[in-house]
Amino acid sequence: MSRKVRLGIVGFGNQGSQYAALVADGRVPNIDVVAIADTDPGRRDLAAERHPGVAVFDDYATMLESGAVEAVVTTVPHYLHPQMGIQALERGIHVLVEKPAGVYTKQVRELNEFAASKPELTFAIMFNQRTNPLYRRLKQIVESGEIGAIRRTNWIITTWYRPQAYYDQSDWRATWGGEGGGVLVNQAPHNLDLWQWICGVPEKVFAKAGFGFRRNINVEDEVVAVVDYGGGATGTFTTATHELVGTDRFEITGDAGKIVVTDSKTAVVTRYRRSEQEINASIPTEDIWKMTSDQFDPNEYYTHETLEFDTAWGGQHATVLENFAANILDGTPLIAPGSDGILGVRLANAIHLSAWTGKEVPMDFDEGEFLAELNKRIAEEGIFPQRS
Amino acid sequence: MSRKVRLGIVGFGNQGSQYAALVADGRVPNIDVVAIADTDPGRRDLAAERHPGVAVFDDYATMLESGAVEAVVTTVPHYLHPQMGIQALERGIHVLVEKPAGVYTKQVRELNEFAASKPELTFAIMFNQRTNPLYRRLKQIVESGEIGAIRRTNWIITTWYRPQAYYDQSDWRATWGGEGGGVLVNQAPHNLDLWQWICGVPEKVFAKAGFGFRRNINVEDEVVAVVDYGGGATGTFTTATHELVGTDRFEITGDAGKIVVTDSKTAVVTRYRRSEQEINASIPTEDIWKMTSDQFDPNEYYTHETLEFDTAWGGQHATVLENFAANILDGTPLIAPGSDGILGVRLANAIHLSAWTGKEVPMDFDEGEFLAELNKRIAEEGIFPQRS
Repeated sequence: MSRKVRLGIVGFGNQGSQYAALVADGRVPNIDVVAIADTDPGRRDLAAERHPGVAVFDDYATMLESGAVEAVVTTVPHYLHPQMGIQALERGIHVLVEKPAGVYTKQVRELNEFAASKPELTFAIMFNQRTNPLYRRLKQIVESGEIGAIRRTNWIITTWYRPQAYYDQSDWRATWGGEGGGVLVNQAPHNLDLWQWICGVPEKVFAKAGFGFRRNINVEDEVVAVVDYGGGATGTFTTATHELVGTDRFEITGDAGKIVVTDSKTAVVTRYRRSEQEINASIPTEDIWKMTSDQFDPNEYYTHETLEFDTAWGGQHATVLENFAANILDGTPLIAPGSDGILGVRLANAIHLSAWTGKEVPMDFDEGEFLAELNKRIAEEGIFPQRS
Repeated sequence: MSRKVRLGIVGFGNQGSQYAALVADGRVPNIDVVAIADTDPGRRDLAAERHPGVAVFDDYATMLESGAVEAVVTTVPHYLHPQMGIQALERGIHVLVEKPAGVYTKQVRELNEFAASKPELTFAIMFNQRTNPLYRRLKQIVESGEIGAIRRTNWIITTWYRPQAYYDQSDWRATWGGEGGGVLVNQAPHNLDLWQWICGVPEKVFAKAGFGFRRNINVEDEVVAVVDYGGGATGTFTTATHELVGTDRFEITGDAGKIVVTDSKTAVVTRYRRSEQEINASIPTEDIWKMTSDQFDPNEYYTHETLEFDTAWGGQHATVLENFAANILDGTPLIAPGSDGILGVRLANAIHLSAWTGKEVPMDFDEGEFLAELNKRIAEEGIFPQRS
């Protein structure tokens, strides 16, 4: 076994304390947690109690300057990821940012640009769902061309149930100024990442969002979006936090097959024996009555395969932590390069902007326009400072 | 048994010949088919051969003037329904129009207005799927408030597979000038009707349509639409004719429950024991960890019921024919009043207009703008005359 990476955890909240426990339990063999920083005295006491021997800091910058850490993971409110990432990289410290990479593309672009100027440092993002064997397999199937060029995608992911009590837990949650959004920023970033990771990046989006639709919050608890991939291919994305019995159903239709994923656990993969274009051209006029009278059985034209997996949304953080450290130690390729974080933020921003303006929005939307619209809402809310 | 209605069938094509056969087979006890009109000599010969004793006409107007018929059903290309309906009503003849009621709202509105001036005559439309016991039951459930106010609807109905040979069968099919559209006008009118019949009429729509996306046609073989019902409620509608293994999945989410319909045969109805608003307010802070760690089991909050039906898209035309005649004979309420036909046409027009303009379109869109855009496409196509 080679040496271990000396990691500092920024923020000892839900995620930070979980990561510290994963390492303490021996689940991440190439990492030592050597330092924890938190601004809250109660959380620092808890960190010291649970992890004796680990240096505890009340200030992130002091931890960075201490020389104790060579890498950090930033489990802090989303707005802070870019600036904390840059602060670490400036000091030659490797960075794993929690998702989402930030709230608005301008700040995430600054982080990406700075990280690009430090190619010797590892810059990764906690897209732990990229380790999910179901989604890894689907990405292989799509990338290999087994289902052909994508015609349409549809993801309904409304299993992110959150009651009002969840929103009332903290001051920053589900506010424009503190969190920067609702379900798009907190629950659905995994889906926004996986959707683009597997199916590609769209060109344009039109969206409806319900801001405080069925929850007493300023931000969105409901989103319906239509994306345009170009060339006639489209997609829909539906998410919500108010659906007691939610749906998780993801469909990918291609020129040569189709994938239907249910509950992020089961995928039925249909592979046509030839492309649909060829099958289409081969069907004679004599057979048309079958289609118009519901007698058509396309069974001869395809095979079905059912893929079953145990895990759905939990876990896999240990794998991303280990991969981050392995990249530092021996250059193992990253599961999720930090620069990928902007894709989900950009799509979330475009969805917000479309919902605010009532217009379809291209992915190269005006970042300044988005930030101005966001700041308008932060100002109206009147709790947190505007962003720049 | 009271007397039978003397029916004339206009057009002895697929639908017209099927209706004549239903009556001849005794499936419609209160109708006699006494006349059939078709402009095609071959179809007239076939009608005479299959239905000896029935008067066969080469001209619709002559049939109307003959005194032989007291009611007609118009199984002719969609554009002709309004004018033929008006011609019959002018002569005191009851009308059952085939769906869709027409191609553009202006012509359907003219039909509706004329029919309204003849309240003594029966005016109905062949929405045979309204007799489907599954959809009748769902309408009851939604209207009774069992699942509360609608929050969102999603219908993916891509089981309308049609190969190129289907489109190549006739000159008018899948043209702007001859048919006036593709999947929205030919296959999906049932869905556009049922969706609005059960879930209500939306206020606005944004849509993407693939015109000749995977078929060599001028009109759409693919549609993705987002509707806005007002008050934050939304819906999506996805349909296509190029999907070899299509999906038929219809979700209705409400304040007090949810319905998921699969293959137009099975519906899982979830009824919450209280409204989601009340359940939401009752969940304590201590239980939030369950939701954020996938441990939440909402089972105690609802009941499930599974409704199973045999039939899907076939049949039920005999029931609508019988109901039409019963309305004439004794005032039995209509399953589908003719005036309802405009709802599906209006939504299809709005979807087309949104796809053409790239903008969200209100249901009270400018009918002149729609017709001008349609005529532009008819002119470019250069086969059929423009419409007015």
